[in-house]
Amino acid sequence: MAETRIVGGTVVTMDDARTVHVDGEVACDGAGTITYVGPRRGPGGDLDVSGDVVIPGLVNAHAHSAMTPLRGYSDSKALSAWLQDMRRFEVRLTTADLTWGLRLALVEMLRSGTTTFADMFRWDAGLLGEVVGAGMRVLAAPALFTADAVPFPAASAEDGRGALDLTERLAAEFAGDRHVRITFGPHAPYTCPPELIREVARRAAGAGTGVQIHLSEDAAELERSLATTGRTPIGHVASLGLLDVPVLAAHAVTATPEDIDLLVAAGASVAHNPVSNLKLGSGVAPVPEMLAAGLTVGLGTDGVASNNTLDMFEEIKTATIVQRGHRGQVDALAAADVLAMATRDGARAAGFPETGQLAPGSWADLVVVRTDTPRGTPLHDVESFLAFSAQGQDVRHVVVGGRLLVHDGRVTVLDEAEVRAEVNRTATRIRQELAGSADG
Amino acid sequence: MAETRIVGGTVVTMDDARTVHVDGEVACDGAGTITYVGPRRGPGGDLDVSGDVVIPGLVNAHAHSAMTPLRGYSDSKALSAWLQDMRRFEVRLTTADLTWGLRLALVEMLRSGTTTFADMFRWDAGLLGEVVGAGMRVLAAPALFTADAVPFPAASAEDGRGALDLTERLAAEFAGDRHVRITFGPHAPYTCPPELIREVARRAAGAGTGVQIHLSEDAAELERSLATTGRTPIGHVASLGLLDVPVLAAHAVTATPEDIDLLVAAGASVAHNPVSNLKLGSGVAPVPEMLAAGLTVGLGTDGVASNNTLDMFEEIKTATIVQRGHRGQVDALAAADVLAMATRDGARAAGFPETGQLAPGSWADLVVVRTDTPRGTPLHDVESFLAFSAQGQDVRHVVVGGRLLVHDGRVTVLDEAEVRAEVNRTATRIRQELAGSADG
Repeated sequence: MAETRIVGGTVVTMDDARTVHVDGEVACDGAGTITYVGPRRGPGGDLDVSGDVVIPGLVNAHAHSAMTPLRGYSDSKALSAWLQDMRRFEVRLTTADLTWGLRLALVEMLRSGTTTFADMFRWDAGLLGEVVGAGMRVLAAPALFTADAVPFPAASAEDGRGALDLTERLAAEFAGDRHVRITFGPHAPYTCPPELIREVARRAAGAGTGVQIHLSEDAAELERSLATTGRTPIGHVASLGLLDVPVLAAHAVTATPEDIDLLVAAGASVAHNPVSNLKLGSGVAPVPEMLAAGLTVGLGTDGVASNNTLDMFEEIKTATIVQRGHRGQVDALAAADVLAMATRDGARAAGFPETGQLAPGSWADLVVVRTDTPRGTPLHDVESFLAFSAQGQDVRHVVVGGRLLVHDGRVTVLDEAEVRAEVNRTATRIRQELAGSADG
Repeated sequence: MAETRIVGGTVVTMDDARTVHVDGEVACDGAGTITYVGPRRGPGGDLDVSGDVVIPGLVNAHAHSAMTPLRGYSDSKALSAWLQDMRRFEVRLTTADLTWGLRLALVEMLRSGTTTFADMFRWDAGLLGEVVGAGMRVLAAPALFTADAVPFPAASAEDGRGALDLTERLAAEFAGDRHVRITFGPHAPYTCPPELIREVARRAAGAGTGVQIHLSEDAAELERSLATTGRTPIGHVASLGLLDVPVLAAHAVTATPEDIDLLVAAGASVAHNPVSNLKLGSGVAPVPEMLAAGLTVGLGTDGVASNNTLDMFEEIKTATIVQRGHRGQVDALAAADVLAMATRDGARAAGFPETGQLAPGSWADLVVVRTDTPRGTPLHDVESFLAFSAQGQDVRHVVVGGRLLVHDGRVTVLDEAEVRAEVNRTATRIRQELAGSADG
């Protein structure tokens, strides 16, 4: 098969040796697998990215991406009022609204360098087909829960238990797919009673799939859990057998040392969402302790309603500096470690270990970041540039599985202007519905 | 004089009433003063910005802008080693290097919507002329100090005391200028002995100017100050008479309630630098307490070596969310208050009260922010958009004093490509010098 050669950039491999190739080259075969990474092998090449930086495609380890129509809605209210507003808005989203909302998220993620994402939402075959069509990769968890009053973002019109069967069907349908992998999605210990958590653990073991779940997001959840179960949220789900299957735990802000040990022993992963944790007042997760314990930690944006973007470069910078400021310790967390969380470690956490680094045999998911900007000048250190200066808008090209999904800053697989117009239409319509309704 | 009309945008005035005009208009006269702000007055207009958001020019209340050649240099080292590396690099910067470094900062600030900045550095008439030439506004403080071992960024080859006379000369030279205002710049209490602080206070009172100074940046400074003077840094300079003149205090991370009362009683202002404070491990300033006490607080980036950008939108988002996360309190700091810090309040802090809001009689400094982006879709709430979604790169046009300095994302007053090339040349040369030197 013909090779595609991307030549001339500074290649940041994110492999174990943390190799950087100035004037480097990445090549892949027609099946979308990397065949060469190293110094440029000579003239020619299919895409000349001289002056740019080449990194693995970024991995967003926790999102609710189709929620984009709620971006910035009711932002200025306190938490309980905000959750009610979110729910009132969210139940009015039609299937078409969610499809356009997801498409906007795909555009936004691609344009800012995300190629793979883990996501809990009302996933179905139609929405998953959108991800396949856009050429991205998703670890999708159809959200499930049984509580009546479910906080955003897991709110759904259907009974959550139906998602158990749906998850198994989708896992079978997409088995072996390179773009879609399925996990169960019990929303959280406080929205899923113990017998449901146990059933999820049983079914996940049977289906050979994993689980995505929100765990230990804030102090209130921890206190409630201790009061009602005598255990931390992580200790509680561990006691129900959930950690016997691969778990990707979102947040873990209030994880105790014992919780971290439980997760490490189980081979579980954590999705760290620093911007959302700050914006919602949840706190700062003990990431340095997690890394020291050997836990696999990915980096996520959470949904745009609590962020309000899907820009992983913001997460990288925030994750790095907030640990330093929170602890009064300039070396609390190294930029290099956070870059690993956003790529290789996030890929492992999100169940796509074939991506997240540039190495022969890995899948050819890569992002070309421009440096011909004020923020990219000068370029003393490429890791500092990526961690503290670059923004999502600096992404020039995005390749997934060898396919060019973003070229010169433009998404090639979706019509961005149409997508924005449709989501704006949705937002306007629902605001009008709410203004005219009794509960608006 | 002919009016210039900017029409069709959503105008966020940042005036006392927090007025927002959808399909609004801002007009100014030939002298660069705003003549009208309100609903669009009819057809026509000189610049149609329909679909965009119009805000006052952003004010960066604390920077060391000409230091851009150090962006990302030695970022990964711990504080003391980093300071030494900064200093080794910084003393090699020639006047020409600093001129290009400043030009890069001006380009970066303009492209991300900053029109006015307060800055402590080795300012001289030549560098100030660069700001005038670019059409921006600066409150400039020539840095002064006497200690031998001065940490970055105030390090200078010249004896700091010479800056006292220089400051007076510059204050006289630029008296009445609409683009340059001068303050004294005693670097910090720990680099300026008590007699120098007293002399600054005397001379500033005589010259009718103010002072910019770093105060209470971290816990180590507070402890040192208590040990050597028996007072906090703010209490110490107050006891020396410094608060008898208008003071803009950078950082104030460890300000006590008594310190805040002192600053309020004196009519002083604070420049809050959340990204730098986090990145350097300094901590989180008590901004909610400052605002509750009635203190004027502006928002700043600090130098790029501790940030690493001059993007005020990053500061706005970080300032807002870090207070919430640090306190575990979702309403710890309102986005609207932080937007005021970045505009009107920052303008007052930076000694340019004529700018920072869109109102008749104010100077016509404004920024047009595009929303035809994924991050700008949908636009439920313009303050949420500005605080949590927008990035510097979303700036489409910038007007200062009625003059169009950025048009469709391109700086009209400087050749950006040439500026970047020169700063890259400087960075490469100094890295080579250091590699070949005994102290490199």
